[in-house]
Amino acid sequence: MTDDRFTPPKNFAWLEPEYSDYDRARVVVLPVPYDSTASGWVGSREGPAAIIDASGNMELYDIGIDMEPYRLGIHTLPELAVQTAGPEQMVARIEEVVGEQIDAGKFVVTLGGEHTVAVGAARAHAKRTPGLSVLAFDANADMRDEYLDSPYNHACTLRRISEVAPVIQVGLRSAEREEHDYILEQGYRFYQPREYRALGPKALADQLSDSVYLTFDLDAFDSSVMAAVGTPEPGGLHWDEVSDLLDTVARAHRIVGFDVTELTPSLGPRANAQLAAKLTYRLMGLALRE
Amino acid sequence: MTDDRFTPPKNFAWLEPEYSDYDRARVVVLPVPYDSTASGWVGSREGPAAIIDASGNMELYDIGIDMEPYRLGIHTLPELAVQTAGPEQMVARIEEVVGEQIDAGKFVVTLGGEHTVAVGAARAHAKRTPGLSVLAFDANADMRDEYLDSPYNHACTLRRISEVAPVIQVGLRSAEREEHDYILEQGYRFYQPREYRALGPKALADQLSDSVYLTFDLDAFDSSVMAAVGTPEPGGLHWDEVSDLLDTVARAHRIVGFDVTELTPSLGPRANAQLAAKLTYRLMGLALRE
Amino acid sequence: MTDDRFTPPKNFAWLEPEYSDYDRARVVVLPVPYDSTASGWVGSREGPAAIIDASGNMELYDIGIDMEPYRLGIHTLPELAVQTAGPEQMVARIEEVVGEQIDAGKFVVTLGGEHTVAVGAARAHAKRTPGLSVLAFDANADMRDEYLDSPYNHACTLRRISEVAPVIQVGLRSAEREEHDYILEQGYRFYQPREYRALGPKALADQLSDSVYLTFDLDAFDSSVMAAVGTPEPGGLHWDEVSDLLDTVARAHRIVGFDVTELTPSLGPRANAQLAAKLTYRLMGLALRE
Amino acid sequence: MTDDRFTPPKNFAWLEPEYSDYDRARVVVLPVPYDSTASGWVGSREGPAAIIDASGNMELYDIGIDMEPYRLGIHTLPELAVQTAGPEQMVARIEEVVGEQIDAGKFVVTLGGEHTVAVGAARAHAKRTPGLSVLAFDANADMRDEYLDSPYNHACTLRRISEVAPVIQVGLRSAEREEHDYILEQGYRFYQPREYRALGPKALADQLSDSVYLTFDLDAFDSSVMAAVGTPEPGGLHWDEVSDLLDTVARAHRIVGFDVTELTPSLGPRANAQLAAKLTYRLMGLALRE
Amino acid sequence: MTDDRFTPPKNFAWLEPEYSDYDRARVVVLPVPYDSTASGWVGSREGPAAIIDASGNMELYDIGIDMEPYRLGIHTLPELAVQTAGPEQMVARIEEVVGEQIDAGKFVVTLGGEHTVAVGAARAHAKRTPGLSVLAFDANADMRDEYLDSPYNHACTLRRISEVAPVIQVGLRSAEREEHDYILEQGYRFYQPREYRALGPKALADQLSDSVYLTFDLDAFDSSVMAAVGTPEPGGLHWDEVSDLLDTVARAHRIVGFDVTELTPSLGPRANAQLAAKLTYRLMGLALRE
Amino acid sequence: MTDDRFTPPKNFAWLEPEYSDYDRARVVVLPVPYDSTASGWVGSREGPAAIIDASGNMELYDIGIDMEPYRLGIHTLPELAVQTAGPEQMVARIEEVVGEQIDAGKFVVTLGGEHTVAVGAARAHAKRTPGLSVLAFDANADMRDEYLDSPYNHACTLRRISEVAPVIQVGLRSAEREEHDYILEQGYRFYQPREYRALGPKALADQLSDSVYLTFDLDAFDSSVMAAVGTPEPGGLHWDEVSDLLDTVARAHRIVGFDVTELTPSLGPRANAQLAAKLTYRLMGLALRE
Repeated sequence: MTDDRFTPPKNFAWLEPEYSDYDRARVVVLPVPYDSTASGWVGSREGPAAIIDASGNMELYDIGIDMEPYRLGIHTLPELAVQTAGPEQMVARIEEVVGEQIDAGKFVVTLGGEHTVAVGAARAHAKRTPGLSVLAFDANADMRDEYLDSPYNHACTLRRISEVAPVIQVGLRSAEREEHDYILEQGYRFYQPREYRALGPKALADQLSDSVYLTFDLDAFDSSVMAAVGTPEPGGLHWDEVSDLLDTVARAHRIVGFDVTELTPSLGPRANAQLAAKLTYRLMGLALRE
Repeated sequence: MTDDRFTPPKNFAWLEPEYSDYDRARVVVLPVPYDSTASGWVGSREGPAAIIDASGNMELYDIGIDMEPYRLGIHTLPELAVQTAGPEQMVARIEEVVGEQIDAGKFVVTLGGEHTVAVGAARAHAKRTPGLSVLAFDANADMRDEYLDSPYNHACTLRRISEVAPVIQVGLRSAEREEHDYILEQGYRFYQPREYRALGPKALADQLSDSVYLTFDLDAFDSSVMAAVGTPEPGGLHWDEVSDLLDTVARAHRIVGFDVTELTPSLGPRANAQLAAKLTYRLMGLALRE
Repeated sequence: MTDDRFTPPKNFAWLEPEYSDYDRARVVVLPVPYDSTASGWVGSREGPAAIIDASGNMELYDIGIDMEPYRLGIHTLPELAVQTAGPEQMVARIEEVVGEQIDAGKFVVTLGGEHTVAVGAARAHAKRTPGLSVLAFDANADMRDEYLDSPYNHACTLRRISEVAPVIQVGLRSAEREEHDYILEQGYRFYQPREYRALGPKALADQLSDSVYLTFDLDAFDSSVMAAVGTPEPGGLHWDEVSDLLDTVARAHRIVGFDVTELTPSLGPRANAQLAAKLTYRLMGLALRE
Repeated sequence: MTDDRFTPPKNFAWLEPEYSDYDRARVVVLPVPYDSTASGWVGSREGPAAIIDASGNMELYDIGIDMEPYRLGIHTLPELAVQTAGPEQMVARIEEVVGEQIDAGKFVVTLGGEHTVAVGAARAHAKRTPGLSVLAFDANADMRDEYLDSPYNHACTLRRISEVAPVIQVGLRSAEREEHDYILEQGYRFYQPREYRALGPKALADQLSDSVYLTFDLDAFDSSVMAAVGTPEPGGLHWDEVSDLLDTVARAHRIVGFDVTELTPSLGPRANAQLAAKLTYRLMGLALRE
Repeated sequence: MTDDRFTPPKNFAWLEPEYSDYDRARVVVLPVPYDSTASGWVGSREGPAAIIDASGNMELYDIGIDMEPYRLGIHTLPELAVQTAGPEQMVARIEEVVGEQIDAGKFVVTLGGEHTVAVGAARAHAKRTPGLSVLAFDANADMRDEYLDSPYNHACTLRRISEVAPVIQVGLRSAEREEHDYILEQGYRFYQPREYRALGPKALADQLSDSVYLTFDLDAFDSSVMAAVGTPEPGGLHWDEVSDLLDTVARAHRIVGFDVTELTPSLGPRANAQLAAKLTYRLMGLALRE
Repeated sequence: MTDDRFTPPKNFAWLEPEYSDYDRARVVVLPVPYDSTASGWVGSREGPAAIIDASGNMELYDIGIDMEPYRLGIHTLPELAVQTAGPEQMVARIEEVVGEQIDAGKFVVTLGGEHTVAVGAARAHAKRTPGLSVLAFDANADMRDEYLDSPYNHACTLRRISEVAPVIQVGLRSAEREEHDYILEQGYRFYQPREYRALGPKALADQLSDSVYLTFDLDAFDSSVMAAVGTPEPGGLHWDEVSDLLDTVARAHRIVGFDVTELTPSLGPRANAQLAAKLTYRLMGLALRE
């Protein structure tokens, strides 16, 4: 029974046990405080804690989608321990843990940490979901085959994911020439924000298969909306257009899992963590809306 | 006589005595450094000082409305002392002081501090202005009847105000289910930003009575525009649309007083204090434009 | 069973359930994120979370006292909810909760929040411990009878506590003339740092009764050691001399409980939270050393 | 030969000697860490270093304009030493150094520091370019004849420049009444953001002569886009519209040089330095596109 | 009459008019927000405001010296306007204003701003006080004859002052070889902290003439005590030894005026501003103790 | 030839080419911006840049040791690129690069980054210096055999180094029980600050062999002196006692190389970077004093 003299536990959305106990929860949040391959500005390892902290500052009713996602039950796992032997080992650990949770019937939400954590999460879902496609929000192509001596560097994230499922990216506005050429050669559908605006959410969503894994590097947002990322870029997406796209995708596809990554709290105002929390919460609602 | 070797005194707009002496001033600014009921991120008590500090960084001619509001005379009171016995006593003190100033013929601008300070200011105006309506800018419904054991918690602000005058709210995008249901039951006109955009400033202004008190919780702005608030929310209002609405309201109604609240300087860049100062200054001009 | 792939839960000292489950724990930590009566620089409500966060950065073996206090079992309660009706009600809530824990056989450690929280905690102990004396670390006299309209303002803390048990203070270097005169009139033993150095830890400890409640306002430390407090003062105590005094007191008296208050994370480096965590952990060890 | 075990040198864009040696470089970057006449919030002297630091976080291929500007060769000079005798002497030094670089056949990019540095740079270009016109991005009129006892105060920048070449300004939304009247009297074309939007990039560009010097005070951007400036103003320009205007100007005119000024890193998130770096890099590409 | 519902005005020590009106005040505080010649880390222009802000956080009774200095009457002038034509002109303005105040019978306390402001203040005193000597607290020799093209650069401060009165310095631990040689050649008495400790306060004070002007660059303190300065240095003075020296000097000499300079709030915790305020307040008391 | 209109290049100590060209330099500085195994508070990868930035704020004459170390010639290499495959590979790269420099006749100074970087540097020296001993300044035992799945985690640094040369540590005040027992079993000489004070610098230095490698984790300093480290601890060493020990060691031994690590600029004031720069500079002078 709840004792009103105390605040709720500081899990995602600050939920009392009735809505956060593991057994009753439909959703499991996996915080992964990892940023060991970051090459620029560091600190995304503090992202998951900042999102969870900010999530207590949200109202539990999301007026924008007229839902109360917490009623699904949301259990927050402890933070994943960092594997410091190297990123390959860390990605393997993430894949393993995410896989266990999927197998236990949970809808898994992975909170980064650097975008690399998405490789493990996407692999776990791809292995268990035939015909999966991936919708990636990202400012950067992330299509290098290797970077700073590792194929598991954050700059290789979408390349690694594209090896297990087809990727459609939205928000692109930063790439090396070689990456750009590679994308064109491969015929990948990577949309810059203005291209996306010309295309519209429906036409983009139509390119996805029935089952979709969603990976969200927060730098897809315009840097006025989201400064707290390692590679903030102007000319990006705004809240309403992201929200509309997510809504459109969720209506016609089954979102099987998602991640939200790259929040680096020290690089921007707390409002950025608040936005990341609200995005995560809304995505839970949209993905599991009946 | 002004001595050019010195900077002006640090009152609102940094005005020399010619434009800031009490007797000659049409406008009185009341800084209320109060945030004792804040439940999330704290520090709005430093808001009034930050706005006044930033106001010295403005040009005194407001090119956007082609006015020089300082010519009205603007006197800045010392900061109101905090009543630490509890928020009910603090609200009473604000009501008392604001009332005295109205009775002395002044146009009163209250600078928060948390939104709770608006309860005292609105009451003082409502008691003296028959038929008053209230235009509230706010991201949150603030419609709880009691919160954290007090009916004077900041989360109850618009509920308390609605007890003394009808409230129209714009900017809403965060509420508890119970608040939302209450708003619908009561038939209150609370507009989300997209609803407001569909409606337009004229149609919204038309719903107000002749005399309007304006209460401005800065979180009505999009969190990219205003990060320095306790509950920053994406999907909010932008500067030009706020400015246009204020202009429209001022043209057809008599604004009898207003407050600007919730600036929490430590949560965002100084640019946010600058914006709050400019908003305050422009509102003075619009309200008293002849 | 512990799963090494995850970090421990973020309770005090980041302990696995074996050492943090309520039933097995000798020590209970009560975080009280309260700063509503603060009159200067705000933010001590973020103190308990910062201490708990920093406590995961400690080694669990305290080499300075050759102990592993975590083996006592340390359970961390959720944060106490703020009572926003006023400080009197908040103090009552603290007294109630601390009392329940004492009655359940726990050793209670209260983490502030402003120093006011000590009033509730000290009262709960005084009611249950005949002949209790209080050892207060504090830069300020805190001996006002009322301040900012409330007898429960933080500036009245030691006055309120002195009403339920005799207080000896160390670290004093800031007071109003009236407080100073009152202290002299009453014959209270309030030691400035240099007076304490002249006296020595043994002579000070000898003035305490057998059972001691310890209240620690972190501003007792020199401001070079502890900047993250609302009223940092130079000329204060240093780590080794505080540590030695605590050790001396603990050897000859029974410490029945204690609080650590006033950490305001935004006002100083994270190193200050680290120090507060280490102080808290060491005090647990010293108080319960066999 | 490049040694992959090391990062590149920290010049603009972090280029290896192949693309940054003076002799092979078409572009020369002159960092001017000067802010001695700033009257409001200080720190733009840290701007050049912040831009150069952030420039290493860019991809060298600018996907937005499909160019790799670094292939032009970009040499970064050491920071100009501050002349502390006064701003007149500092402006003279800048004019001298910029002039020497132009005479050596370089395309000069000046990084401020306060906007005053543009006076020296613009003069050096105007003396060497018959029929030069100046396109100024700025929130402030900067049209005072003297300010704080000096005609070289930052508030006089566009007045000084207008003495050597006709100025068209875009982004204006802050001015003194006297400046505004002066602009109207002189028939200067100073466009507020909304005026510019009504006009469009083509019509604005058509007013420029063939050879254009471009001076960019970053406060021309909306304060949500760029908070890290001394006088951040809401209601300003957004990234895409600035980028489009620059593209339009570059297509039909010869940009002979430019400056980017007023970045004050401590006043906003690092994302602002990133944006300034990207703006600078894109402008190099556009100006020298074949 | 004081209205308890308001806080006092934000002058130095936050004094009500009874103790802060110009006519009744024995002490005048002159805030000089000047840092235009700073060559390293900037921001000391925000020092005076930070000291005044922090001074409201002090108790008005200084228990360390058993005095209430505010009873002398302390009037705070508005901030001196910056002369941006150059430092020579700024120094002249300071000398003029300080001189006017001395002539009006006031005890003048100058708050920097960079150390250069002391040149103007010291000159004004030297001209009016035959046989004046200067006691300088400083980490740096400040003995350059010219620096960055100006003899009024902050690095020349003590050289300029030594031209009008003999200087004894304490706290030295940073100098160029040429400065050091010059000091030795001239036979100046510049004491490093360890030298001072060996000498003792009495022997140092004995070297001063009857009338003493005191100039305090806050970097004389150890950088653990005072981080918020442009050139923080380890190995410096601590609070108690500074306080003791001031007390010793004040007992045997007439302190005719003083300055406290170089506080750069953004470079350290607020505790540093608090210390500077307390130092200033104590010096007022010591200088005018009867 | 130097052009006085420009500041010097931003290498260590900001030296003109005469004193910083590789060929003429006796000392080589290797910046290693690596913190990938950090388990607590991150950001030491920004340490080398912060130290180099701060080094320009030093006087080149070190009055404390009456030397001008820059006359030795100090060349600063570009930052070492991070090897993101894992720490073992990164350590190997450091060993390789340091070894090459030693073989080229240089005195190598390695700037971290996390303490792990010392493993590579110490190995390179140990392989080339028969009978080398290591003097380690560190708050933590760093004696784990493996941590977070890697033997090259920062928590294993001294364990790894002790495998190639005997280690004497000073500053210890944080360890796990197992580490402490291991140290005792092995008979290692690890001194807590108070133990060191009892022993004195001479007795400690006498335990070192003729050739000494010095590894400096900045957390050896008291956390009031150095807050900007990942594991700040109270009760540590102060500047003068560190400086004296270094002087004593340098007089009787040959220091063959050293590293300064763990500066995490975002965790403390800039004064901490300044101290680290001065420490590095002084150590260069002491190590190569003739």
